Amino acid sequence: MLKLYSAPGTCSLAANIALHEADAGHELVTLDFANQQQRSPEYLAINPKGRVPTLVTEHGVLSETPALLLYIAQRFPAAKLAPLDDPFALARMQEFNSYLASTVHVNHAHGRRAARWADDAAAIADMQRKVPQTMTESFTLIENHYLQGPWVLGEDYSVADAYLFTIASWLKSDGVDIAAFPKVAGHTARMRTRPAVQRALG
Amino acid sequence: MLKLYSAPGTCSLAANIALHEADAGHELVTLDFANQQQRSPEYLAINPKGRVPTLVTEHGVLSETPALLLYIAQRFPAAKLAPLDDPFALARMQEFNSYLASTVHVNHAHGRRAARWADDAAAIADMQRKVPQTMTESFTLIENHYLQGPWVLGEDYSVADAYLFTIASWLKSDGVDIAAFPKVAGHTARMRTRPAVQRALG
Ligand SMILES: N[C@@H](CCC(=O)N[C@@H](CS)C(=O)NCC(=O)O)C(=O)O
Ligand SMILES: N[C@@H](CCC(=O)N[C@@H](CS)C(=O)NCC(=O)O)C(=O)O
Repeated sequence: MLKLYSAPGTCSLAANIALHEADAGHELVTLDFANQQQRSPEYLAINPKGRVPTLVTEHGVLSETPALLLYIAQRFPAAKLAPLDDPFALARMQEFNSYLASTVHVNHAHGRRAARWADDAAAIADMQRKVPQTMTESFTLIENHYLQGPWVLGEDYSVADAYLFTIASWLKSDGVDIAAFPKVAGHTARMRTRPAVQRALG
Repeated sequence: MLKLYSAPGTCSLAANIALHEADAGHELVTLDFANQQQRSPEYLAINPKGRVPTLVTEHGVLSETPALLLYIAQRFPAAKLAPLDDPFALARMQEFNSYLASTVHVNHAHGRRAARWADDAAAIADMQRKVPQTMTESFTLIENHYLQGPWVLGEDYSVADAYLFTIASWLKSDGVDIAAFPKVAGHTARMRTRPAVQRALG
């Protein structure tokens, strides 16, 4: 059985939604970030990065959201969670997921986890102040260039939708009003009607 | 014909190496970052992110290094640049590439491109000071947990090797001595003997 290590309000929601879409029958383990459980020796033995998500499979342990999402789509092909037979469409999905992971998630992380990249309190405060601006820039790009509608890749739902929904759910706490991005707001509303999303949100 | 937009010393080297490994016969376009050519209206019309790499294909334009690398591997299967028939091994490759893009490249970018995430000169200087530490942390993890040897995925060369080589080539300018990571240093030396790498380095 697949086991997903997660924490509330984090990017692990994306893989959790994908597993529910696939009816994977997975086990969900929730870490307590308030008590730094992600840095406990037990968890570091599973994932030395000390982050979520982590997916434990019978072949070994995997991390990194874009990797988990593609793996889930490939493992449960009947769920049709990725354009597996069309290399260019798959590249579009990977482009989108990679942008979320390497740019949008990173912009967001400068709010709560600025101490990864700076030590001075003043520097950290300056980085936090800039989050609304960088998140606005990223979502402007998504709204105008990448979200095809109704789903990220157009007519076909994919794991990229679970990932966009997850990161868009951070906009409010990042000081950005999702209403400025009507296509993204519509996407979030559509996602909320999906049974798998409702199950993942518990 | 495939056309790759690149700039010297950037992450675009990874896709360029992969295309040479595949004997893709691609065209290479080199942007002049000193003159901000990546932000020219002409280039933004091709890639609205204003970054490299960008790959122009007959189906459309792609960005994001992990997406380009998987696409190149899928488009040229005879070059055997990814474990395309083994979903778990492919997930390992995606995990590695995703980590490079979302964590290691981002750590490095806090040196030259700190202004993406902060405005104050003091904050930017503090972020730059921390780069040797974060790059050391990332390469310690790669050395101890992810680089299987001789190649990233073990016996089989893949696009992940082109990507690791590219990011490892930044260590010196990031103030980190590659000799602290013997497996990574050996990997870099092995990469330099490959004809495709020599052609990409021109
Ligand atoms: N590149 C990773 C990032 C994972 C990550 O940063 N996860 C955050 C939650 S969104 C985390 O576990 N943070 C815990 C910490 O920094 O201690 C991915 O896309 O999965
Ligand atoms: N997530 C992207 C990052 C691309 C990126 O940041 N490229 C840098 C060069 S390594 C760039 O074009 N920078 C130009 C700029 O910031 O103006 C990828 O992995 O391809």
